[in-house]
Order: sequence, then structure tokens, then C-alpha cells
Amino acid sequence: MTMDVLKEITRRAKIINGQVMSYLEEGEDKKLMLAVRHYPAAGGKRLRPMMAQVVAQAVGGAGDKAIPFASALEVIHNFTLVHDDVMDNDSMRRGRPAVHVLFDVPTAIIAGDAMFARAFEIITDTDVPPEQVKRLTKTTAHTVWLIAEGQQEDMDLENIPVDQVVIEDYQRMIYKKTAVLFECAAEGGALIGGGSEEQIAKMKDYARLMGMGFQVWDDILALTGDEKQLGKPVGNDIRNGKRTLIVLHALHTMDKNDPRRAKLVKALGNDKATPEEIKGAIDVLQDCGAIDYAKRTAAEYAAEAKKQLECLPPTPEREFLSGVIDFAVGRKV
Amino acid sequence: MTMDVLKEITRRAKIINGQVMSYLEEGEDKKLMLAVRHYPAAGGKRLRPMMAQVVAQAVGGAGDKAIPFASALEVIHNFTLVHDDVMDNDSMRRGRPAVHVLFDVPTAIIAGDAMFARAFEIITDTDVPPEQVKRLTKTTAHTVWLIAEGQQEDMDLENIPVDQVVIEDYQRMIYKKTAVLFECAAEGGALIGGGSEEQIAKMKDYARLMGMGFQVWDDILALTGDEKQLGKPVGNDIRNGKRTLIVLHALHTMDKNDPRRAKLVKALGNDKATPEEIKGAIDVLQDCGAIDYAKRTAAEYAAEAKKQLECLPPTPEREFLSGVIDFAVGRKV
Repeated sequence: MTMDVLKEITRRAKIINGQVMSYLEEGEDKKLMLAVRHYPAAGGKRLRPMMAQVVAQAVGGAGDKAIPFASALEVIHNFTLVHDDVMDNDSMRRGRPAVHVLFDVPTAIIAGDAMFARAFEIITDTDVPPEQVKRLTKTTAHTVWLIAEGQQEDMDLENIPVDQVVIEDYQRMIYKKTAVLFECAAEGGALIGGGSEEQIAKMKDYARLMGMGFQVWDDILALTGDEKQLGKPVGNDIRNGKRTLIVLHALHTMDKNDPRRAKLVKALGNDKATPEEIKGAIDVLQDCGAIDYAKRTAAEYAAEAKKQLECLPPTPEREFLSGVIDFAVGRKV
Repeated sequence: MTMDVLKEITRRAKIINGQVMSYLEEGEDKKLMLAVRHYPAAGGKRLRPMMAQVVAQAVGGAGDKAIPFASALEVIHNFTLVHDDVMDNDSMRRGRPAVHVLFDVPTAIIAGDAMFARAFEIITDTDVPPEQVKRLTKTTAHTVWLIAEGQQEDMDLENIPVDQVVIEDYQRMIYKKTAVLFECAAEGGALIGGGSEEQIAKMKDYARLMGMGFQVWDDILALTGDEKQLGKPVGNDIRNGKRTLIVLHALHTMDKNDPRRAKLVKALGNDKATPEEIKGAIDVLQDCGAIDYAKRTAAEYAAEAKKQLECLPPTPEREFLSGVIDFAVGRKV
């Protein structure tokens, strides 16, 4: 990844911030508006709306035409974060108090619902033929259904004995929780940009593969990243018993009698585990090669994602989409 | 209200039940599907989908064409109930445990979100020109935004000294919490049925006025109804400090030194109030004429609602829409 990609992401994110916030101004209840704007106003990488706009450009359309749809996806992403934080009882987000902490749980639930509703209002503002608005609406609605399923599956998996969870369960879950919204962004962007059905399909594949790599990399970062840069304690996933690719690979490959296995199992999902026990479990995951395995997997997703870009004419936008992959599976935060 | 209206409501509700449930079958997560189907499967009056279908017929269209849209509104109504029960910490609904009690709070939040998403997927299935699908989507999304505002305003009002709350605050709040979804049902039904813009506007007015009367009547029932039929303790609204039309009228009209006033104020929003104190407060509301005032108000809404039906040709459906008003402001449950 060149520094230019990060620069371009930052440049585009700034513009997108203004676009997204402009859709979150109208409302009669002051408290609700504060709650609705709280996460979107805190910034973020804006990868989802960025993908919609850049893909629209990359297939030969105008990025501006994708602004409403792109903004709607960012609002949807933020709505899921508001509800997620209530469900997980997470008190901080992007270095600020969570919505349900700053206000209260009912306000956070309502704010999430309101953001969801606003997102669909925004989509109908897209300046494309009504037939395409219908398709954007249907795809986006189905995407949110899948995200909800993914969240539920994530919780379900935590309650299943870890040796009964297979890699396919993890893949299906992260597809729904993370990759599907990227897929929706790319599909919508390609549609709005006037891409061919073949390009739309390839852009979906690109985004899904990128999103899968993004999530695997996220799981790696959560164990090996810098606590200050991450803004959350390293190893929380161990404590919460998350069935990540890393943990699954370790447990599937380590011998039943391997003493490292017991060390890992003891810390996994144990909210009373000491910081030393968590660190010990992370060391096991390094030592047994599970983190390296996850890195290889992320790299494979990235390589597959890049191949899909070959259907596009060579443009700076295509270059940027390629750079986004490198960022997704190489970022430090 | 003749018995025929109630019979016709029950007959139509049964058919609608099957339609609604047919849209809640597809899904990969078992637990989520159980949570999603829990309230819709428990039955209900189905007034919102019924209104969409009957209005479509009353303007000369086919009721069946409105099935997806109508079902989507019922799913939306149920999604708001799932989230409402989490927010209000209500443990029972329609005689069964609330979703968050039967499962857990995270599952209830996700189930509500999933239902919301499914509703928008269903709307795009409506067999009308894409331009109309776009309009249905936009109206429905804006409606859900207003419902969220109404819920927030309802909570906000409980924290404002009751003598600073004016009747207009109450009217705005119940418009958003209750009437707007009826309005959306009638608007969509009229649109799908091929009504003229004038008919669409009149049907919206009809449904809004009916919805306002419905809510005022609901507030009356919550104080004077039969506990067994209601399925919840009479007077809960007093204990929860709800700023209903009845309470506002009483406090606006009773003299500052009226001893009845002190009795009412003491019980209002007092979760430690004894059953006798609650009953005493209800007696005050009867005695000072506030409940009669609310009954007159409900009757006025009903009369205004009926006037709007004059734009329709005389059909059994128009008769039924008129009967629905009598049911809404005269029902026992």
C-alpha cells in the first residue's frame, strides 16, 4: 500500500462526511437528532460510501450520482453500530461515549431505528430511473436482513462449543456481518454508474472478497494491534469467546493433548481471565501458526478481489479500488 | 357499531394473518426466525394492513394488489412493538412473553431490525409501476422516521413538568406514534388501488383522523377498561406518568387549589403509588370531566374522519371503512 491510497481515502472521507451529515439535519426532536448524529459526526474511514462512489466512477459514471445511495449505506452502517453497542454493552466508540451511554438505551434503540428509516428515504432520492431505485431498495433491504442474521449467528456461535464450530460457519457469519454491506455498496455503485450486468457482478465479487479480507484482518488486528490506535483492549475477542478464523484454525489443528490448547480454551469466553491469561492465549495463537494462517487467508481474499478489477478500463479509480484492498488487509487501525 | 363490522374485521384479519406470515418464512437463523415470527404469529386486529387493502378496493382497485404493501406495514407495526417492549421493559404482549423475555434483549433488538428490513424488501414486491414502488418506499420510510420521533417525544414528555405540556404536544406525539402509520396505510392503499390524487389525500385525512381517535380511545380504555380484556393493569398510564389528553385536560382545567388536583399529581408518574392511589386518581379524572372530554374529542375525530369518506363511491368497502371508525372509538379492547 502506498501512502497515496491512505491520503486519497482521507481526502474522500472528508467530502463524504459532509454529504452524510447533510442528510441528518432534518428532525423535530432535538435529543433524537443529537443521538442520530453522534456516531456519523465522529468520522470514520467511510469505506462503504467511498466504494459506492468510486465504483460508479470506475464503470464510467458520475460519482456524484451515487451520493445519496452512498450516504444511505454509511447511515445504515452507523445504525448497526448504535444497536451493536447496546447489545454488546460497549461503552465507547471512536473514542467517544456510546449513544446508549451518552443518552440511554431506549434513545439508542430509537435512534438506530430512525437512522435505518432515514437511509431508505435517502435511497429514494437517487437520481436514477425508478426501476433502478426499486432495485437499490430491494438489494439494500435484503442486505440489512443478512446483516441482522449475521449478528444473530455471531451470538449463536458464541454459545456453541467451539469444537463444533467449523470454518464455514465463520465464513458465512463474516460474509453477512461485514462483507455483504461492501457488496451492496459496489453493486449499487456499479448500477448507478451505468455498468453492464457483468461489471455489476464482478464489482459485487470484488467487494465481497475485499470485505472478507477486511474482517479477517480486523480479527488479526484485534489480537496483535496497538491498543492506543485500536481504541479498545487487545484480546477482547478472546475474553468474549469470539469464534474467529484464528481461534478455529488453532483448535482444529492443535493436538488434543497439546498443553497450549488447554491454555487457549481456558481464556476463551472467560470474562474473569487475567490480562496474563489473555496474553498467554494470544501467544499460543502466534506460536501455533494460527495468526499466520489468517494472514495468508486475508492475502488470498485480497488477491482474488484484485482479479475482479480486470473487467474495468484502466483508470485512476480502478487503481484506487486496488489500493483499497491493500489498505483493507494491511491497515494498522 | 354493528356486530357485522367486528365480524368483518375478524374475517379479514384471519386472511391477513396468513399473508403476513408467508412473508416471514425465509431465513437461515432458526432463533432469529422464531423471534421475528413471535408477535406476528400471536394475531391482532390487523387494522393497518386491512386499511391498506380496503382503501385499495374502495377507490376501485383490487385488494389483492395491496397484499405485499399491507403485509409490510403489519411487519413494521410489529417491529415497533418488539423494540417498544424492550424500551419500556414490558414483559408481556398479547398474553405471551415479550420477545426480549422469551429470548434476550440483543435478539429482540436484532429481530426488530430484521423485521424492518424485511418490510422494505416486501414493499418492492408490490405489483405496481416502479415509480409507485418508489413513492411507497419513500412514504413508508418517512413514516417510520416519524414513528421513531413520536416514541422519543413520548419519552421526552414524561420528563417535562406536566403543567408545561400543552395539548398540541400530545396531539403531535400521538399523530406520530399512532396515526401516521394508519395514514401511510391509507395513502399506499389508495395509490395501489389507482385512486385519484384527491382521493389519496382524502384517504390520508380519513386514516389520520381515525388514528387520532383510535389513540385517544386507547388512552380512555387504559383507565376505564376491563383489566382481563385489556391484558394489562388498568391505570398503568398514571403510574408511568403518561401525558395523555385526559391528564392534560384535567390539570389545565382544575383550579390550583382543588384538592383533587393534588391527589392526581401525587399518583402521576409515581411508581410507588398504591392501587388505591391509582384508583383515586382515575376517580378524579372521571369526576372532573376529563374522561368525558376525551370521549367527546374521540367522537369529533370520528365524525371528521367519516366526512372524508364522501369522496368515495358507495360500496360495501366504504361502509366498512365507516364501521372501522366506530370500532376504533368504541371498542372494548
